[in-house]
Amino acid sequence: MRRAVGVIGLGAMGHGVAKNLINAGFEVFGCDVRKESVAAFANIGGQVCDTPAALAAQCQVVIILVVNAAQTDMVLFGDDGAAPQLRPGSVVVGAATVAPAYAIELGKRLAKSGVGLIDSPMSGGVIGANEGTLTLLTSGPEAAYEACNDVLDAISSKVYRLGAQHGLGSKIKVINQLLVGVQIAAAAEAMALGLREGVDLELLYDVIVRSAGNSWAFADRVPHILQGRYTPAQTALDIFVKDLGLVLEAARASNFPLPLASTAYQMFATASAAGFGNEDDTAVIKTFPGITLPGA
Amino acid sequence: MRRAVGVIGLGAMGHGVAKNLINAGFEVFGCDVRKESVAAFANIGGQVCDTPAALAAQCQVVIILVVNAAQTDMVLFGDDGAAPQLRPGSVVVGAATVAPAYAIELGKRLAKSGVGLIDSPMSGGVIGANEGTLTLLTSGPEAAYEACNDVLDAISSKVYRLGAQHGLGSKIKVINQLLVGVQIAAAAEAMALGLREGVDLELLYDVIVRSAGNSWAFADRVPHILQGRYTPAQTALDIFVKDLGLVLEAARASNFPLPLASTAYQMFATASAAGFGNEDDTAVIKTFPGITLPGA
Repeated sequence: MRRAVGVIGLGAMGHGVAKNLINAGFEVFGCDVRKESVAAFANIGGQVCDTPAALAAQCQVVIILVVNAAQTDMVLFGDDGAAPQLRPGSVVVGAATVAPAYAIELGKRLAKSGVGLIDSPMSGGVIGANEGTLTLLTSGPEAAYEACNDVLDAISSKVYRLGAQHGLGSKIKVINQLLVGVQIAAAAEAMALGLREGVDLELLYDVIVRSAGNSWAFADRVPHILQGRYTPAQTALDIFVKDLGLVLEAARASNFPLPLASTAYQMFATASAAGFGNEDDTAVIKTFPGITLPGA
Repeated sequence: MRRAVGVIGLGAMGHGVAKNLINAGFEVFGCDVRKESVAAFANIGGQVCDTPAALAAQCQVVIILVVNAAQTDMVLFGDDGAAPQLRPGSVVVGAATVAPAYAIELGKRLAKSGVGLIDSPMSGGVIGANEGTLTLLTSGPEAAYEACNDVLDAISSKVYRLGAQHGLGSKIKVINQLLVGVQIAAAAEAMALGLREGVDLELLYDVIVRSAGNSWAFADRVPHILQGRYTPAQTALDIFVKDLGLVLEAARASNFPLPLASTAYQMFATASAAGFGNEDDTAVIKTFPGITLPGA
């Protein structure tokens, strides 16, 4: 009999993860509120469930691929949530970037009904999910790992096992997001200054990606600015309002100063409040005054 | 007869450049105020000159490898400076990172006595200088290029020819330094938060360099923090006080806001005023309170 795995949240990330599980021979159940996501999942051989509760009744391992802690809570403990249907010994793999304190609390709540939690923020984005090359920053109890090692291996190329305590992966993911957020905002600031100074932007990009000023974020995102392409192919700007908010929340818990993360947060919040929250995260450059962007 | 090229400033960068010129068959004249730099240059076959003036009398092409605009001005126009000795038709290659406005002004001053200027900020650091793999961000008049193309090619693997107007290379170099400075400061902020949160720092580094949070600066500099090594192997912290100062000065000329560069400048200035200006630039992490750094 094939092992049954559930995927809650069939967006760009969830679809790729589900595809790799199906290819690895698992029987994959999925649910999502968006009809087109469900249809795409059915198309690749997934078993559609109407609710998280219906899904949980079928699966020993459930991966939650939603955006944040609030959605994680809703699909587990809200109306028709998965948690009440999960049997003792089953495991939840939580993939959302959440505050470490939330991951610890969630582990305790699930443990009360004998359900294990692997806290597993993911790095690698939509491409990594699609190609099965995600990096997983996992932590959780040994027994939970034993129940889902094969699932984790099927969707990733690298599984960090950081320890038994929940939230360790979230701590590292949150710090990664600090750097990505600051570096996307810095890329926008650098290109905005280049425009203001009359520098050829294609040339500027060409030089920087070969120079010490390069970053993964610069190389990956600046082409969106050069092409005037602000549809959110990868991540919407509001994701960084949320993730930099999480970074600041984590630091606030111990009164720790984060000058650059604070500044980057203000830049993304300014862009979001100006109406660019659903555009590509590089739309943060639209808050710089006195320049005319490519494609504008 | 071998072509004579002068190198003013025989520090780590100048020494590497001189070595590659000697290896390419040029007769290389050099001067520096530091005795040990001069001795190292003589050792690899360089012709030592006592003053920039004495050097300029021998050379058709003079490369100036000093730290900033003030030093460039001094070796050209100060006591025993090179400028009065340079013959019409000779060329100065200015390598310091300077404000674009300074490069334009310098070009005009030299042109009055028929001397050409190639404004040529360099990327690639000490390693690039030593291996002859620098990237040169050059601009200047065509006649000046004709007099020094062979020299530029001998010391670099990539020569960007950005146009006739001086200062174009400086504009791009200044923007590159904005990114490097922000990204070194962001790397320090991220590692400081990791320490505060009790994350294993080696693991954090290992994950980030494989993740979207990576940057050239993070990968290159964070090992200094992990090893507690703050001797300035590459660049002293005060270099970024200067270079981010140049970035802000360039933007101030057109009232342009640079939120991240301003914040990073404040971080480096705080570290410099606290007494860390001559340490490695990663010593900016020492301004974060409430953490105990590796090696401390």
